[in-house]
Amino acid sequence: MKELGIGIIGFGTVGAGVADCLLKNGDVIAKRTGVKPVIKKIADLDIVRDRGVKVPAGVLTTDAMEAIDQCDVIVELVGGTTFAKTIILEALKRGKPVVTANKALLAKFGEELFEAAEKSGTDIFYEASVGGGIPIIKSLREGLVGNRINRIYGILNGTCNYILTRMERDQADFKEVLADAQKLGYAEANPSLDVDGFDTAHKATIMASLAYGEWFGMDPVYVEGITDITLEEIKLTDELGYKIKLLAIIKQNDGNVEVRVHPTLIPKQSMLAKVGDVFNAVMVNGDFIGDTMFYGRGAGRNATASAVVADITDVCLNLKFESNRRIPGFTAGNLYENVLSIDKVKSRYYLSLQVVDLPGVLAKITNILAAHSISISSVVQKERKDAEHVSLVILTHLCEESNMKAAIAEISRLSDVLNKVKFIRIEDL
Amino acid sequence: MKELGIGIIGFGTVGAGVADCLLKNGDVIAKRTGVKPVIKKIADLDIVRDRGVKVPAGVLTTDAMEAIDQCDVIVELVGGTTFAKTIILEALKRGKPVVTANKALLAKFGEELFEAAEKSGTDIFYEASVGGGIPIIKSLREGLVGNRINRIYGILNGTCNYILTRMERDQADFKEVLADAQKLGYAEANPSLDVDGFDTAHKATIMASLAYGEWFGMDPVYVEGITDITLEEIKLTDELGYKIKLLAIIKQNDGNVEVRVHPTLIPKQSMLAKVGDVFNAVMVNGDFIGDTMFYGRGAGRNATASAVVADITDVCLNLKFESNRRIPGFTAGNLYENVLSIDKVKSRYYLSLQVVDLPGVLAKITNILAAHSISISSVVQKERKDAEHVSLVILTHLCEESNMKAAIAEISRLSDVLNKVKFIRIEDL
Repeated sequence: MKELGIGIIGFGTVGAGVADCLLKNGDVIAKRTGVKPVIKKIADLDIVRDRGVKVPAGVLTTDAMEAIDQCDVIVELVGGTTFAKTIILEALKRGKPVVTANKALLAKFGEELFEAAEKSGTDIFYEASVGGGIPIIKSLREGLVGNRINRIYGILNGTCNYILTRMERDQADFKEVLADAQKLGYAEANPSLDVDGFDTAHKATIMASLAYGEWFGMDPVYVEGITDITLEEIKLTDELGYKIKLLAIIKQNDGNVEVRVHPTLIPKQSMLAKVGDVFNAVMVNGDFIGDTMFYGRGAGRNATASAVVADITDVCLNLKFESNRRIPGFTAGNLYENVLSIDKVKSRYYLSLQVVDLPGVLAKITNILAAHSISISSVVQKERKDAEHVSLVILTHLCEESNMKAAIAEISRLSDVLNKVKFIRIEDL
Repeated sequence: MKELGIGIIGFGTVGAGVADCLLKNGDVIAKRTGVKPVIKKIADLDIVRDRGVKVPAGVLTTDAMEAIDQCDVIVELVGGTTFAKTIILEALKRGKPVVTANKALLAKFGEELFEAAEKSGTDIFYEASVGGGIPIIKSLREGLVGNRINRIYGILNGTCNYILTRMERDQADFKEVLADAQKLGYAEANPSLDVDGFDTAHKATIMASLAYGEWFGMDPVYVEGITDITLEEIKLTDELGYKIKLLAIIKQNDGNVEVRVHPTLIPKQSMLAKVGDVFNAVMVNGDFIGDTMFYGRGAGRNATASAVVADITDVCLNLKFESNRRIPGFTAGNLYENVLSIDKVKSRYYLSLQVVDLPGVLAKITNILAAHSISISSVVQKERKDAEHVSLVILTHLCEESNMKAAIAEISRLSDVLNKVKFIRIEDL
């Protein structure tokens, strides 16, 4: 049986998971595929600390280049966008296929990296970069290859989904739940990458590129995080039949592409709304397959290892059959010129206002919306409990975001409106 | 660009869908993969009827062998287990790869067909045979290749899931909903293949074979359909926090394999319980990935076409790179000797009884259960409304089915028990 030498660079949590998976399940992989991935080198600055994985003698090295030179498949699990990039480029230069889980790197330098792979006639595999263990990259590239992709909705950040789920379940504030998530290890000490939506955006641009066959990068992606979501809003939207999720939204309509990440109201009864805690899910709508959803753990040592090992196996099969670039990587294109700016996006909206409890206020607000061609789908005004203001929630039909923003600016100038008018976009899935 | 000639045999609903998909999306497939599948022949006895697909001149033929001889890839969409088998064997004999959606054929003759493919050094692809458009076969074979599969739960028959969903939603009887489903085209005039569980069992055995790498066939599969599920049971189990689904259950424990299909109580809050109407879903638990779920349309012209076209594309890539048998087919094995008979399976149970409303009845029943080492997790006895009997529902902890059946036989002999004691297995997922 063909054996291939795997070089793992970065022996952190995921690196240890990958080594563990290859050591424990190498025999079933061999039985299933006829190739056997064998760990030849693991490179890390620290080769002393116990990772709970029994690595064969002679495998550990502090020299990443040694791993690159001696192995057939290079697995980059260093993280970050500097040394990781160097490693990948060095491997590709030598014609060696690369497996990576590094979404930030791909999102930032994808075009350069995929070009380097093309030039060397080899591949970059990146299943673990989106959705953790979920085989969504393979499914999009191969399983749904016969479809034009109409739209993709993704819950792609476990930390955010955990926080939003806990806020709802425990009726707790964002800050309180975040602190708890940090204690439990579900959120970083500096949570910005997650809660500000950038991690989701990295994954969104990778999926958009897969869906539409060209590299988008981060520039055209609109990003908004969950830090402004209040418990009050979660309660109000729940009453209206919606849940708030941080969604990656990718769409194509008449050549216009949307790639955006923001908190989104989705119907409570939808499958996607039922994805709770740290789980991820991706709902894809293709012109032939219709709606299909992929669900699983979006992060963590073992789930991520599962995806990395699937890539390693694919690469091994390519090496066995000399079928490198079996499926081409991304090509440069100009589709990103067609990515709509957020102001041009059409959406339904949830508006939340605090207004004085006087006659005529609702009329003023609805007149402004009408003047901007915004049609209202429902209004909830709750009786005031104590203060002089009342809560007003308005759901709209589809309108262009620029109109909505203009209307909100005008509404905000009304002396009857006491708060900064908040809006959240709605997707009916 | 490499073009490959596709021969479709069987121009029914799915055949028309596949032709439609290749004609509409051949260009994106070519862009994504670098190969172009081109329809060269479509064989059917009826080449006159309009299928709503504009097929190029010269493509239609009534001669299946002409398609086999002239095409690179043979797509069997005839259905049934006689002529379909002949076609596939003829194609394989000529070393031509085959794509099929025919689960009944694979379940019945899989071992013979996969042996023939191996002998000719070519492949049978069968994504559409399980879960319609959902890329579950590719995900199990490739995406989860690094995992030992602990268990698989599948809702694999749209007709049954539609009937159970409607019974619950409309509080209607099985017969009533079945009649309606037949009117709507969701159920066949003779619904046995679906409602008696055999279609699900065909899919279960294919997935079991994928999970465990050997061909199982139908012999060791336990099958029970949904025809005995009453509205009363749906109501009772709902109150207890469960939904009834027709599940395919595949498990491995210490070398013992379970492959079974039967109505199953699953917790209402589980993702699988939320899969409604005609949708299918497969929940896979692997030792590294943990729980992951795949959801989508399990049948229908276009969803099925999506899966068939994905297979066609894979075959085209194999032909381009001369990588036939990139991933080996099933091998003969003896794991099926380890498939537990249903009597050896351990499960939790739901028992439903009608008993006379007299002192001591519950004691008699619980004594019998205890004598068979069956421990009770909950009991619900409702106050009688009119009749002299009361409804008694008992949920048990895990016990071996042989014990449960012995206990039920004994309970049934009590003169206090007025109905045929019903039991449904429970999975806590």
